[in-house]
Order: sequence, then C-alpha cells, then structure tokens
Amino acid sequence: MEPYKVYEIKQSIFQANDDQADQLRQELKQQHTFLLNLMSSPGSGKTTTLTRTIEALRDEMRIGIMEADIDSDVDAAKIARTGTRVIQLHTGGMCHLDADMTRQGLQEFGTEDLDLVVLENVGNLVCPAEFDTGAVKNAMILSVPEGHDKPLKYPLIFQVCDALIINKIDVLPYFDFDLEKVREFAHMRNPNLKIFPVSAKTGEGIEAWCDWLRQQVGAWNNAASPSGLG
Amino acid sequence: MEPYKVYEIKQSIFQANDDQADQLRQELKQQHTFLLNLMSSPGSGKTTTLTRTIEALRDEMRIGIMEADIDSDVDAAKIARTGTRVIQLHTGGMCHLDADMTRQGLQEFGTEDLDLVVLENVGNLVCPAEFDTGAVKNAMILSVPEGHDKPLKYPLIFQVCDALIINKIDVLPYFDFDLEKVREFAHMRNPNLKIFPVSAKTGEGIEAWCDWLRQQVGAWNNAASPSGLG
Repeated sequence: MEPYKVYEIKQSIFQANDDQADQLRQELKQQHTFLLNLMSSPGSGKTTTLTRTIEALRDEMRIGIMEADIDSDVDAAKIARTGTRVIQLHTGGMCHLDADMTRQGLQEFGTEDLDLVVLENVGNLVCPAEFDTGAVKNAMILSVPEGHDKPLKYPLIFQVCDALIINKIDVLPYFDFDLEKVREFAHMRNPNLKIFPVSAKTGEGIEAWCDWLRQQVGAWNNAASPSGLG
Repeated sequence: MEPYKVYEIKQSIFQANDDQADQLRQELKQQHTFLLNLMSSPGSGKTTTLTRTIEALRDEMRIGIMEADIDSDVDAAKIARTGTRVIQLHTGGMCHLDADMTRQGLQEFGTEDLDLVVLENVGNLVCPAEFDTGAVKNAMILSVPEGHDKPLKYPLIFQVCDALIINKIDVLPYFDFDLEKVREFAHMRNPNLKIFPVSAKTGEGIEAWCDWLRQQVGAWNNAASPSGLG
C-alpha cells in the first residue's frame, strides 16, 4: 500500500487549436520563415541564451524575437540592446500563447523578411506545453538549479519539445544535479529529444545548440523554396 | 521612442471563485485548521523547504501536506518519508488549484484534526496567483538562481502573497543576485510582504520563517476559539 493517497481532480477541457497552428505553419513555410517556440521556467536563462544565440547566428540569417510576458518589458529591453528586431507581446495575465495569439504577434511584428523568429514564451513549464503555437520546432530550457527530476514532474513539455537546453552548467559543482539522470528521465518522456548542455553565461556549449538550430532553419527554408513561392 | 513595440493581446476572462474561497476559509476557521498556500516556480525548493518546516514545527502542531502536481507523485513520496500525513492531488494537466479543487482535496484528505495544512501548489508563478484557493495565508518561494528581477516580471504573485521566502542563499556567491534589489522590487509590488532569506539545504534562516508561520497559525486557531465552535 502507498504511504499516501492519490486523488484525481476533474480535468478541464482545453480548446484545441491544432488546426490554427497547422495553418500558421503553412503560412510561415510560404514566407520562408522558421518559427522557434522557446519555453522554460521563470529564471532559467531564456533571454541570456537567446542573446548568445543571436550573437552566433546574426551574420548568417535575419533574426527577430517575440517576447511574451504577462505585462513587463524587461526581456524586450534586454534583447533590443543587442540591436536585434524585437517585439514585446503582453498576454494580459495569460500563462501561455496559443496559435491565434502567436499569429496576432507575428502580424503585428511583420516577419516576411525574417529567416528565424524566436518566440520566447511565458516562463512556465505547464500551460505553454498544452498549446501548439504554430511554431516549426519547440525547444525548452531547464537550468541546473531547478533539479534533474523535472521530466518526472512536468512530462508534457519534455514530450512536445524537439530540443532541450540544459543551462547554467557552470554551477554544476554547487548543486545536486545529475546530468546523466536528467538525460535518462528526459529520454523516457521523449526518446528523440536532442539535449544540449550549455552555459549561457560563459558561452560553453552554445555552438552545438546553434548548429542544430542552423540545420533546422536551413532545412525548413530550403524545403519551402521548391514550392515556387520563394 | 521605444526601441521596440508593445502589443497587448486580448485578455481572457478568469472565472471568479472568490465566494467559494471565502466560504472555505469560513469552514477552516470553524474546524481550527490553518491552510497555507505555498507557491513557486518549478525547482525553487518547495518540498525541501517544507521538509525543514515540518521538522521545526511537528512537535508543536499537527501538520498535513497536500501536494498538487500535474500527474506525478515525486513530492508526496518525499514528504511521506518524513512520516507526515500527506495527500497527492493530481490536477490532470491544470496549472493551478482553485477554491473548489482545494476543497475537494481537503475533504478527501480529512483535515478536521489538523492545525496546519500546507498546500504545495503547482510549480508556476502565473496561474496559481490568479486563483484564491481559500487559504488563510499565501506564501511563495523565489530561489536565488531565478534572479532578482522576478517581481518585475510576475507582479501578481508578489502582490497576493503575505510572505516571500528567498531560498538557496547558500549559492549567492555564484549568482548575480542582489538581495537588496529583490527586496526593493518585491516591496514595490507589496509593501507588506514579509521576506525571509533561507537555505533549505543548510537550514539557515528557517527559524525566522517558522516563527512567522507559528504566529499566523496561533492567531488563526485561537481567534477561532471564542466562536464557541472549538
């Protein structure tokens, strides 16, 4: 017998927005724009990782950043300092973006001339994972101080992501964080998940992550060309 | 002119559950049970902080823990090892608990003989702050690696909380975290917020936090007595 009871609270219904997401991907393909949806907990280092990513890729492709936040501009202000095109989306209290909100953001931003748009989703491991934003690929950041058990506790986000960035590896010596365990737990959820240990602070590991992203953007934008729309 | 655009996405309507929360508090008062709603990001150390809190208070009061998680039992298993009564609530994908879900949990748990129940809410700085659970007091944990800018980015949770635990102060030397700045930002949101810097790992600062909690529980449970229901 378990030493505690488990009680299932009734589940609420999330409205499916999969059709809208598929349609948005179709439009992005036509305009040769790759949209990456980047998710994580608050404080995992999304903005710093993005800044490093921009530095590594800005000479090869035209990049735009969509910052989604409850109601602050902290992240957009940071990104703007890199000279990159950025728009701040305010979700008005909402904990995630759905496909329609993402399309609103993209239209307002004007992304026709961009090769790569990164959507920095609201800092939250739960709700953003529930809604397909229409992004071509999903990536998440898990930082060392958060602990290696997170794939056990937040399974869905690990399932829906294509890439997992393990950030803040520079502080590994100060935390009980087992890199092998997190790989094992994450691959239990999603055997195809690509894992990139990085330190956005020191730059370690950023190149491998950027190589993967470069390949994804190239494959999407080139595959779009033969359709005659490019 | 701002170097970036700010675009307000239409706000969805959250259903008010304030009446249900008030009624639940009324019931808790009648049975002399103090309910603390504990919120934080994933990986901030809620469970470890709870374990320390239980150790400090278990000889003075009867404690029960309600763990709310998407669908894992990781935290309940940890708490059960302390010998404390614990129930695991599965939210079935939901990112928060509302007053009705909290009442369902309390009824299933059976809390009449408990002095203090701690609800460990879903790890998330956004949604749990939107819904009054019916708790007597709200507390949150912010951990050092998350950064001192969080009160700027997640204002509501700092507004609704009575106490803020700053956890993982043992790793302050390895992070750009300014304890004075976080105090300033948090008090901008909520001048009455009590702030407790702690290390759940080493035990530093736990006593001050427990003193505050002890006072709150005593005030609630004693104030309930004169009503003649105790």
